Amino acid sequence: VTPMRIKVELGDRAYEVLIGPGLIAAAGRHIAAVLPARRIAVVTDENLAKIHLSGFVAALVEAGIEAVPVVVAPGEASKSFRTLEAVTDALIGAQLERGDAVVALGGGVVGDLAGFAAAITRRGMAYVQVPTSLLAQVDSSVGGKTGINTRHGKNLVGAFQQPALVLADTDVLDTLPKREFAAGYAEVVKYGLLGDAGFFDWLEANRDAIFAGGAARVEAVARSCRAKARIVAADEREAGERALLNLGHTFGHALEAAAGYDAARLVHGEAIAIGMVLAHDFSVARGLLAPADAEKARTHLSDAGLPVTISAIPGPRFEADELMRHIAQDKKVRRGSLTFILTRGIGQAFVAEDVPADAVHAFLSEKVNAP
Amino acid sequence: VTPMRIKVELGDRAYEVLIGPGLIAAAGRHIAAVLPARRIAVVTDENLAKIHLSGFVAALVEAGIEAVPVVVAPGEASKSFRTLEAVTDALIGAQLERGDAVVALGGGVVGDLAGFAAAITRRGMAYVQVPTSLLAQVDSSVGGKTGINTRHGKNLVGAFQQPALVLADTDVLDTLPKREFAAGYAEVVKYGLLGDAGFFDWLEANRDAIFAGGAARVEAVARSCRAKARIVAADEREAGERALLNLGHTFGHALEAAAGYDAARLVHGEAIAIGMVLAHDFSVARGLLAPADAEKARTHLSDAGLPVTISAIPGPRFEADELMRHIAQDKKVRRGSLTFILTRGIGQAFVAEDVPADAVHAFLSEKVNAP
Repeated sequence: VTPMRIKVELGDRAYEVLIGPGLIAAAGRHIAAVLPARRIAVVTDENLAKIHLSGFVAALVEAGIEAVPVVVAPGEASKSFRTLEAVTDALIGAQLERGDAVVALGGGVVGDLAGFAAAITRRGMAYVQVPTSLLAQVDSSVGGKTGINTRHGKNLVGAFQQPALVLADTDVLDTLPKREFAAGYAEVVKYGLLGDAGFFDWLEANRDAIFAGGAARVEAVARSCRAKARIVAADEREAGERALLNLGHTFGHALEAAAGYDAARLVHGEAIAIGMVLAHDFSVARGLLAPADAEKARTHLSDAGLPVTISAIPGPRFEADELMRHIAQDKKVRRGSLTFILTRGIGQAFVAEDVPADAVHAFLSEKVNAP
Repeated sequence: VTPMRIKVELGDRAYEVLIGPGLIAAAGRHIAAVLPARRIAVVTDENLAKIHLSGFVAALVEAGIEAVPVVVAPGEASKSFRTLEAVTDALIGAQLERGDAVVALGGGVVGDLAGFAAAITRRGMAYVQVPTSLLAQVDSSVGGKTGINTRHGKNLVGAFQQPALVLADTDVLDTLPKREFAAGYAEVVKYGLLGDAGFFDWLEANRDAIFAGGAARVEAVARSCRAKARIVAADEREAGERALLNLGHTFGHALEAAAGYDAARLVHGEAIAIGMVLAHDFSVARGLLAPADAEKARTHLSDAGLPVTISAIPGPRFEADELMRHIAQDKKVRRGSLTFILTRGIGQAFVAEDVPADAVHAFLSEKVNAP
């Protein structure tokens, strides 16, 4: 099967995203076509190593590339200075040179960590993203944001470092639990909601097929990557349009933080689903959006099995005051105003500056109790 | 006094190096002219804080900029993951935003550490180098190499991150001990030896005046920065010509490592002085260089108060085998060959690939015992 190819147009840092089935089995050949590396460190986590590592290493060996596995603990806690140091030590200890490369074989955590380690080892090594979750395939593996968390918050230390290649093997999505697939799907829907009403319509017509797998799924991933690639090419360092990718993320991050990043209660994609619905409802409340459009977004996400209200999150109730504290930490409040991504219609998101913090607080006070 | 200005031509990452007396006292004004930062973290070490911090902070406040001091322990040990994490934590904890900036007020250690912390905090903050040693003014503060050491070696983790401005205040050089000034002078001489015979002649005629201070010193710093700026602009990522800046560094690094990085025995500039003399002698031994040119280099460095032989280093004798082990760690030995910076005359250094490791070993076996 010939994979779909999407080019991320970034001048001398341009690269391709390959999307399709069977890409892990052919990884050595695809990597050798873009990189001269003779030796490659494969960074993955303990869980993914059991499923994918031996096949991936075999694919490298088949292309005459020596593989050096670097296995970290699964979970967000690996996005730390401690694990970063351990990974850079492993890369240097294996005597990888600047001309060699690093592969991130995993979801967002492995991608962010391994990409950052590649960015700083010997002041920059080539790296390849091989995302194994839907969320990573349509979001974090494209765009070059890498990093770790600190005690002050998530992703506060890192680098913009574009990969040399992204291999999104859609076969690996077959092994994902339904809840994780749905969470990734929230980010797929985001591309429709933020800037492409036609894509949203297509998702409405094809949701079941996408969840079932096959050609519709490949197309959903490809259209998402194409949307992100276009935005990143226009605004690599998030000076403008790239901020639209944060649709639903201000509310979503606050919910994740207030839920203590407890995956049993809420995973990232679920938080973004609720956050996007809140962003639409808030746009209605601000007189910007027709209520019917907010309803369309809510219905589509809900039908995909995603939570769409704050009260749907299991565990203790949320307080508007606490959510506002997290929002203030996430964003600088300038003279009582916040910057938000709001929307005027399906596919018509925009950056709204000077959103009164009071209005956000009043909106959330109502929403934390809404059924 | 109007400072000299040298532009480092790097497209959208271009910046100026200002050189002259009184720049620290005017730092706020010069920084405000290139950066919109309202708040600036000033990273320095405990020793330099006593001498320069209050004056520097006052200069920022005078320009309406709030200063956030971040003081680290002096010495190479601060180029560690541990101190890096502490500095990034301090920057984030002070709620510095991407639009704010970081100043590195110090020598090479502070510059490498603070520059790297700026490169990775919030995926990149602006930073300004204010080098307080001659070595840092003519070498590390220009060119954007930042980083820390790991247990595998020096500068193995870091980033290429260009500063927004370099302020080389030549007044601060008056407070340097003679030995430290001489060590920095070795890197000044390097620019003559590697590519500018006219500059070397000028140094021969003006060495005493440069050591005395005043206009000749400013000119020596400026010509060194101009030489480095030109090379960096031509080869930012060290793919070619920039390697010439490593003249004397392969031998020098091996001597520093074999001396256990013990500053009582050998500081970096001294190691480079001996290393450059060895590179010239080795070039003579390889039939590339007239002995009279090697003698000129040796005499000039020796008259500047620098050590020029291995046996001049106090403490235990050096062994050629050990030096070769350090050279092999520093460089990849490919089929018995090494890459070295050699020279065909004063100002005519070049990158020599395929230098036989055996020849280097034989040369060092002789030199470790030479008087």
